Amino acid sequence: MSSKTLNDIGEDGVIQLIHGKGLASLPPRVRKGIGEDCAVLETDGDSLLLVTMDTLVEGIHFTAETLSPEALGWKALAVNISDIAAVGGTPHTAFLSMGIKPETEVSFVESFMAGFEAMAAKTDIVLAGGDTVESPSGAVITITLLGSGLPEHLVYRSGAKIGDDIWVTGPLGNAAAGLFVLLNKNASELAGYESLIAALQRPIPRLEIGKALGQSGLVHAMIDISDGIAKDLRHVCQESGTGALLQAASLPLSGQLERLASLAHKDSTEWALHGGEDYELLFTTSSANEQKIVSLTTKVLGNPAAKIGTIVQEDGIWLETQERKQPLKPGGYTHFSR
Amino acid sequence: MSSKTLNDIGEDGVIQLIHGKGLASLPPRVRKGIGEDCAVLETDGDSLLLVTMDTLVEGIHFTAETLSPEALGWKALAVNISDIAAVGGTPHTAFLSMGIKPETEVSFVESFMAGFEAMAAKTDIVLAGGDTVESPSGAVITITLLGSGLPEHLVYRSGAKIGDDIWVTGPLGNAAAGLFVLLNKNASELAGYESLIAALQRPIPRLEIGKALGQSGLVHAMIDISDGIAKDLRHVCQESGTGALLQAASLPLSGQLERLASLAHKDSTEWALHGGEDYELLFTTSSANEQKIVSLTTKVLGNPAAKIGTIVQEDGIWLETQERKQPLKPGGYTHFSR
Repeated sequence: MSSKTLNDIGEDGVIQLIHGKGLASLPPRVRKGIGEDCAVLETDGDSLLLVTMDTLVEGIHFTAETLSPEALGWKALAVNISDIAAVGGTPHTAFLSMGIKPETEVSFVESFMAGFEAMAAKTDIVLAGGDTVESPSGAVITITLLGSGLPEHLVYRSGAKIGDDIWVTGPLGNAAAGLFVLLNKNASELAGYESLIAALQRPIPRLEIGKALGQSGLVHAMIDISDGIAKDLRHVCQESGTGALLQAASLPLSGQLERLASLAHKDSTEWALHGGEDYELLFTTSSANEQKIVSLTTKVLGNPAAKIGTIVQEDGIWLETQERKQPLKPGGYTHFSR
Repeated sequence: MSSKTLNDIGEDGVIQLIHGKGLASLPPRVRKGIGEDCAVLETDGDSLLLVTMDTLVEGIHFTAETLSPEALGWKALAVNISDIAAVGGTPHTAFLSMGIKPETEVSFVESFMAGFEAMAAKTDIVLAGGDTVESPSGAVITITLLGSGLPEHLVYRSGAKIGDDIWVTGPLGNAAAGLFVLLNKNASELAGYESLIAALQRPIPRLEIGKALGQSGLVHAMIDISDGIAKDLRHVCQESGTGALLQAASLPLSGQLERLASLAHKDSTEWALHGGEDYELLFTTSSANEQKIVSLTTKVLGNPAAKIGTIVQEDGIWLETQERKQPLKPGGYTHFSR
């Protein structure tokens, strides 16, 4: 027994404590467990069962200042949908555990459910169960989302190949910039940053394009960007045994992001690389398929995905700017580390 | 919008807020949702998918005084297994969300996982994913457990028939009495109450007998006793459109429970009826099958299940003692009510 705390070992250390032993003995019916966006389980039917579980904690993932109850309901479901979208699957059934203070107003739960139901209706997801408990401190929301997909349509983190193009489905850094706006601006200064705030509060999971990419057969690896591209791309590279080279000039940055960064003397590229919570999809394809990807993503998204880099043999994640090529440190939010 | 709090509307009111709208529009593929021990979903295979989700919150469901980290890991999984056992299903895959303070010692997680893994190994359950997050207050543990069962083997709350015998698989009230011992006795006084404390800390879900009863075709309705028999039997009766008459003299009470009740001037029947957390199974069968139930339960459990009452037409749950027949008030633990 050690007297170390979780603070000392960090999030990866905690995950190793919880899943280390089990990982060594996962039966074949569990095709993917830890280390993928969602678990992938064999069933006695043709399709695979997809399962993801995400928890949002008041004071850690959100506060009353950064997320209204309605936005919380929306986002809690959206981030789970994003995990299913990231393998090209179709979500169908949700389970909601809500830990909440007894002195919470009824209107909080009503608003939360309005947001949840709006997201569920948009994506044909049914709420079929869960648990409702008292929480002595703030709200703790856990959602388990089930989905399905045919084996030939699912795309994992582990498939990236050297020479692949790296793509993202939309702008990066908006959610992080939206959080900056909420924490640093007065209410009267929020005008002009609506799309950044919406990116934080009302993320739209990339479900349709995730499915289309999975079914296209063109994609080698895919992940959703929840912790920042620097960290999430690293997951792809670690699982695929590759490195990656990003082109700074190719990162898709929104006009509102650039304007805010300029006014606030911030580095927009930092937000894009490390901000997290964008819930765009990152995927890799053979460069021979560039035109097909442009036309498929234009058809589904209304605009083409952005090609931002290349999968390379050399370990690590590299960023190339006009001046130089530099290694990207692991960024993104890490639990249990101060 | 109302300015009422969750305290005012109670647990049933909160559940209605969360699931009220959805219940009206559950698609046929969701055979059971809220109102059953676990959700029952159709798949594209022969078997049905069973899903349950339970949350344990430090300070509400347990404290460091009532549950060691190892017992917490064991119990958190056991209570979910009990929900699958209660429909006669077979659990197979677990997902664990652990919210925990960063200053928690590593040994807490190690001990928790030792308890979790011991229960998982006993029941052939694999841990395939989850989430690990900071919690600013105490530990919040949510487990989602998946299982399966063939449609013809599953037993629901709703099948009780007037005239059915009511059975339970083992002693009632031990867990509640164990909690009383822990909260009211010094460490030196715990000897002689080991089985009560074990019932609270190390419940053994009735998985094998649940499956055997489901496969026997003899059982009309089944539920696990998590909130106390008075409340759980009420669920069966509400779903089945019946009432129930319990015989006080037939309630299975352990020797340790009776001895404690006598010494502490407590009513052992109260513990048995309202205590909760026993995780025994309650089931109903045609009285013609009494001998078959006795022999099946003796074979699987080592001793016969206890016949404790009868399903009746008259609404409500009734308790018959030597002196009189009286209605049982809804008891059991209720969240959000003071």
